[in-house]
Amino acid sequence: MISNTPPTPYYAVIFTSIKSPEAGEDYSDMAREMDALVTEQSGYLGHESARDSLGITVSYWVSLEAIAAWKNETRHLLAQDLGREKWYQTYKIRICKVEKEYGF
Amino acid sequence: MISNTPPTPYYAVIFTSIKSPEAGEDYSDMAREMDALVTEQSGYLGHESARDSLGITVSYWVSLEAIAAWKNETRHLLAQDLGREKWYQTYKIRICKVEKEYGF
Repeated sequence: MISNTPPTPYYAVIFTSIKSPEAGEDYSDMAREMDALVTEQSGYLGHESARDSLGITVSYWVSLEAIAAWKNETRHLLAQDLGREKWYQTYKIRICKVEKEYGF
Repeated sequence: MISNTPPTPYYAVIFTSIKSPEAGEDYSDMAREMDALVTEQSGYLGHESARDSLGITVSYWVSLEAIAAWKNETRHLLAQDLGREKWYQTYKIRICKVEKEYGF
């Protein structure tokens, strides 16, 4: 689903990743857990995901403080550690301020 | 591929879309054409795409002016018109300033 975000400005985290061949069922379980957990965070506005050879997840937030709090959430810290250690060949995270939005 | 973007700040366009069932070979041809054409634009820094039920394309730019010029490129204007008319059920475009980047 496309997130129904509020009027700008707000913040976005663009998470782009390439999975490792070792990312198996443990990865899928954690991905599902994070997909649910993120929606419960303070300041969360929505998130969008797609994956083919590349994975892109964009999450939307009210503030940089909300992004920092999510980064430091206990289960999310474990997910990040496992991601670096075994699930991702490479990834990049970009923190953005959304200045303008349009669509139909 | 994950884009090798320069030190922040720079700009990102997050394009999230849901394709219409009518998006056939004409859509695929135009998507391929835009995928090549965008890389030739002034101020272009890279782009990343993934699609499953949702499509997400993020393109990176040196400035808002470069983004505006790409929006007004002749073939791209045609692609946008056709996108609205027949290829997309819905889409959203978000213009962002990338303030921080990390990864491995």
